Amino acid sequence: MKVFNFLFALFLFISFHSFSQADTTERVVLVIHGGAGTIMKKHLSPEKEAAYTEKMTEALQAGYAVIESGGTSILAVQAAINIMEDSPLFNAGKGAVYAHDETQQMDASIMDGKTKNAGAVAGVGTIKNPINAAIAVMNLSEHVLLTGEGAVEFAAKNGVEIVDSSYFKSERRLENLKRIKAEENDHGNLEPVDEELKMDVLDKKYGTVGAVALDKENNLAAGTSTGGMTNKRYNRVGDSPIIGAGTYADNNACGVSCTGHGEYFIRNVVAYDVCALMLYKEISVKEATAEVIKKQTELGGAGGVIALDKDGNVAMPFNTAGMFRGYITESGKVVVLMFGE
Amino acid sequence: MKVFNFLFALFLFISFHSFSQADTTERVVLVIHGGAGTIMKKHLSPEKEAAYTEKMTEALQAGYAVIESGGTSILAVQAAINIMEDSPLFNAGKGAVYAHDETQQMDASIMDGKTKNAGAVAGVGTIKNPINAAIAVMNLSEHVLLTGEGAVEFAAKNGVEIVDSSYFKSERRLENLKRIKAEENDHGNLEPVDEELKMDVLDKKYGTVGAVALDKENNLAAGTSTGGMTNKRYNRVGDSPIIGAGTYADNNACGVSCTGHGEYFIRNVVAYDVCALMLYKEISVKEATAEVIKKQTELGGAGGVIALDKDGNVAMPFNTAGMFRGYITESGKVVVLMFGE
Repeated sequence: MKVFNFLFALFLFISFHSFSQADTTERVVLVIHGGAGTIMKKHLSPEKEAAYTEKMTEALQAGYAVIESGGTSILAVQAAINIMEDSPLFNAGKGAVYAHDETQQMDASIMDGKTKNAGAVAGVGTIKNPINAAIAVMNLSEHVLLTGEGAVEFAAKNGVEIVDSSYFKSERRLENLKRIKAEENDHGNLEPVDEELKMDVLDKKYGTVGAVALDKENNLAAGTSTGGMTNKRYNRVGDSPIIGAGTYADNNACGVSCTGHGEYFIRNVVAYDVCALMLYKEISVKEATAEVIKKQTELGGAGGVIALDKDGNVAMPFNTAGMFRGYITESGKVVVLMFGE
Repeated sequence: MKVFNFLFALFLFISFHSFSQADTTERVVLVIHGGAGTIMKKHLSPEKEAAYTEKMTEALQAGYAVIESGGTSILAVQAAINIMEDSPLFNAGKGAVYAHDETQQMDASIMDGKTKNAGAVAGVGTIKNPINAAIAVMNLSEHVLLTGEGAVEFAAKNGVEIVDSSYFKSERRLENLKRIKAEENDHGNLEPVDEELKMDVLDKKYGTVGAVALDKENNLAAGTSTGGMTNKRYNRVGDSPIIGAGTYADNNACGVSCTGHGEYFIRNVVAYDVCALMLYKEISVKEATAEVIKKQTELGGAGGVIALDKDGNVAMPFNTAGMFRGYITESGKVVVLMFGE
């Protein structure tokens, strides 16, 4: 069975890469990311690369199925993000990294481009799918951002699935935390270390999942979910639960989800800035996202953005070595990429 | 002594209102707000009105003294906000309102327009001056936003003054919470109630202090501090600690601090939007702030903003009945206003 999965994934991987020059005049209906960082071929085994491709494809197809059946862009974003949250491959939900105190504290946000309504949670530890809690905050409260135990209490009261914190336990992520602490204490590298662990150490500040969808009613939605920064302290909150920084959606411009060194994305209000550039300078989503990445590089912030405009034009720029990313068109064509192609 | 204070305040009040048509070609170096809401003459006794005028004047003069002596805009913002945080008149620090569980949870943020560095704390209960903790986060950590106990731990370790939660205790604010809970439970008004308590009930979602300063090096800084929304639950966080929403500063455009119904300020990314409008549409600070207030009114969000551009032009628009606000010019002229003049 595992061999079959691997071969299937390899087949998908080869197939999708041939789509990377796909006809971009076709409307894109869903774009996702699985984090930006030092994602290079040398860090990933062929099996791992295939696993990422397979999981991102599954996420794209789950969101696509929602849109095809006439579901909202919010539900499509949720479906795609839930697949990635439930996978240990990505730093969100099940794959969340550890904070300094060996807890896992997750953040998520969602925004509806039609109403400009939004919801977010920060620093939650026992919500299986933080994006679902963000959606509950948006739909069922008068608030935008709830944090910590209060956010968990609200989610639980409103039917969002709560799990024991042991659900998120990961020996690999704990090993990762140990290595990062050792490195920060100048104890040097703990040998032996494989290439993927090296990548995880290099990317300790990054790792997020996100999605932007455009439904048949031409409504945009954007969402982001993350475990945050490995070894974070003091209940640090990054850009992912911050509307404007990590997530934004406005039917008049585009939907945006960001990934990268959160503090820099907060300081430049990156997600909203893409919309502001499109609205005020009347430039395209490709030009606007290129501009915000240029500003991030100038400020010193590593990462990337995905954006989808109201006409189905997609952009996925980044200033890191790679970014897990992909999109699906209205006819169901899938493109999945991860390196700096 | 009290009579003297009252007469002095009344003198200031009369004096400053005569400045409301002051020569606005003179460069403004500091602008503050003490919250927007249903602030009308009928809700305030002459004594209370004089007390607000006196305290805002004190805040403006404290910040002005910093700038005059060559201090940074960050220190001027801190000095002005500290005065308002230490007063029970404003919903920040000593005057913080109560959350649903009868705790006081405060938020604050600061941004440096020169470096675009920023710091913020959310949901802190025992930090005497939350703006000081935000400044410590900006200067002494690699982070922008710390929350809850983690933020308090960081502040304490870095020399920010911690107090017992009893420091913030206020019978008046507790009475206010009780009335708002009764109102929300449809128990009607609890009589007797004075005009000022009525105003506090009407303004349960508002109340903030903020400042924007321009120093002799032509650097802008903006800061905001609040006790948040009365009767808030689930560790709700408003716009005040959110860079982009409640606070923003960029030497190339302006510094901004917001006050009002936080959720709407988050959804429209109001503070950064003022800067984006100035930078991308090349309009003035007066035009840009008028535009964001128009957008807030359209979305349904009550409140106001203060903004100061790099040339010392000031704007203080709002869509509520009133807003506690004022500024001081480079020659030391003070203007303090509160109603919809």
